[in-house]
Amino acid sequence: MAHVDFYFDFISPYAYFAWCQIRDICRRNDATLTVHPILFAAVLEHFGQLGPAEIPAKRVATFKDIARFAALKGIPLEGPATHPFNPLTALRSCQVSVAGDRQHDAIDAIYLAGWGNGADLGDPKAIEAALSQMGMEGQEMVAKTRDPAIKAELFEATKAAIERGVFGVPTMFVGDEVFWGNDRLHYVELALQGRDPLPPNVDSFLSRPAGATRPGSKR
Amino acid sequence: MAHVDFYFDFISPYAYFAWCQIRDICRRNDATLTVHPILFAAVLEHFGQLGPAEIPAKRVATFKDIARFAALKGIPLEGPATHPFNPLTALRSCQVSVAGDRQHDAIDAIYLAGWGNGADLGDPKAIEAALSQMGMEGQEMVAKTRDPAIKAELFEATKAAIERGVFGVPTMFVGDEVFWGNDRLHYVELALQGRDPLPPNVDSFLSRPAGATRPGSKR
Repeated sequence: MAHVDFYFDFISPYAYFAWCQIRDICRRNDATLTVHPILFAAVLEHFGQLGPAEIPAKRVATFKDIARFAALKGIPLEGPATHPFNPLTALRSCQVSVAGDRQHDAIDAIYLAGWGNGADLGDPKAIEAALSQMGMEGQEMVAKTRDPAIKAELFEATKAAIERGVFGVPTMFVGDEVFWGNDRLHYVELALQGRDPLPPNVDSFLSRPAGATRPGSKR
Repeated sequence: MAHVDFYFDFISPYAYFAWCQIRDICRRNDATLTVHPILFAAVLEHFGQLGPAEIPAKRVATFKDIARFAALKGIPLEGPATHPFNPLTALRSCQVSVAGDRQHDAIDAIYLAGWGNGADLGDPKAIEAALSQMGMEGQEMVAKTRDPAIKAELFEATKAAIERGVFGVPTMFVGDEVFWGNDRLHYVELALQGRDPLPPNVDSFLSRPAGATRPGSKR
């Protein structure tokens, strides 16, 4: 059976959009799904990069871009009360070790509250409220996110993601193939159907030498 | 009459794909087109960012991504002999001050030679050959790219692009609206048709405060 690994952080609106679609994609292609909350800021830190919201012109273009996508697709998008925000409590609440078999519900609850309806996803009280409204034990779950073992788990998951080849969110793996971005879900679906359009000559590209290298390049 | 400004650098395969489409988009929407060669490395430098080919995992994912796109769309993609390469000669050859009224032909010639057929776009001899094969005076044009005034023009164009809000390539402007990426050409087309889906609430997003800020954020 085909399988998808989905890596996300609540900070990313593109991960929100991809979350709104990935379960349907898995369902209609008989694929199982494993969801990995990770800390995007740590990924950026690892690569010495700024996120889209950290470059003023890119922030404006990105917010306009997501507003266009949501409007065309009919996805609720009020946007969270603050951005960027500290997503640690939100992310830890969605670890299986905290949310158990309601992991997907927890993610739905938090995304809908924040990106959908304007809650402050950096505020643990807002996370509690979102989870409770979805019929979960919000207060207990948020209390559990302060447990050092739960904190370590997010750190380890992020480290493992980087080691596996994650450099942004959302990232989807189908087997060993990595797909980055909400706008690449059509390739995820093709891969699940055994129709990945990747041509054989890609290895020849990848082995080309660099003709010029900037200082700071990690290649 | 509607107008598109197109900012590109030969280093970017996504700019190649967008170049393959932007003239048709302008033609079928009665829009005029101004093409701006700019130095992407200077944009990255300005924002302290790494390009996609400078992060190893992102480089692999990017090359696979472009191979998929080219395969699905039937766009020739052998990929240039070296990457990254120094694109200065190629870019300057396509300034109106060098290519005159054959600017579009010069861009076609260089893209096809490099991304299409595997020439080394960092090699001035390859640029000469590509231009000559398209019936232009390749040798004279490349000689002209060594003129300090021509060099200054690329520098000024890049600076002006950053001031206007460019943070990547390809970037398209329709009036004051900025669209970034080959995968956003459908929004360019909607904007040209007066059907930009941008909803009015985007200003409310953009005025939200930051709830957490990483060191180094330029916001």
